[in-house]
Amino acid sequence: MLDAAFSALSDPTRRAIVERLARGPRRVTELAEPFEISLAAVSKHIQVLERAGLVKRKREGREHVLSLDARPMREVARYASKFEKFWTERLDRFEAFVVAVEKEKEKK
Amino acid sequence: MLDAAFSALSDPTRRAIVERLARGPRRVTELAEPFEISLAAVSKHIQVLERAGLVKRKREGREHVLSLDARPMREVARYASKFEKFWTERLDRFEAFVVAVEKEKEKK
Repeated sequence: MLDAAFSALSDPTRRAIVERLARGPRRVTELAEPFEISLAAVSKHIQVLERAGLVKRKREGREHVLSLDARPMREVARYASKFEKFWTERLDRFEAFVVAVEKEKEKK
Repeated sequence: MLDAAFSALSDPTRRAIVERLARGPRRVTELAEPFEISLAAVSKHIQVLERAGLVKRKREGREHVLSLDARPMREVARYASKFEKFWTERLDRFEAFVVAVEKEKEKK
């Protein structure tokens, strides 16, 4: 699941599609509108996102309606936050430094 | 930055390398040890991680020492957490459901 999710999210157009769907479900044509690439190219990106489980497709009459499925995104968030200590520790050191500087000022 | 980070993390061997470096800096040969692929293949993966900014290389005499740079990972975590409401909302609904069930029990 992570392989496909990370791979799908490595493309800026696909991330833009995901962000657009975060505002609500869209028909394929609606979704493609703001992108300056062909409908065929958008469709290919959508297929990659569907295979990664990030986009769901529902048929409504003749139209296909796409919506976001955030579950793979949650896995991505979980994976990346496992490394959180690397940036919070650095922040802790920075905060300790700021406190030390402030204390030094108080002495003067 | 996100393009390269997502792309680098889409491979399970590269994620394993990153996880191994999270425990501390390693020489290339040490790092390659647990992987059942050639040193050349590991080196290629390391190069991809370096280009994505996830791995830093330092020369110590004849050896190259690799360490993790978690900054791109922080960007990945930030990006994915923008979608957090999609899983917390679902959780809120589930919690509301549990509370409703408990209330129903109390009535009996």
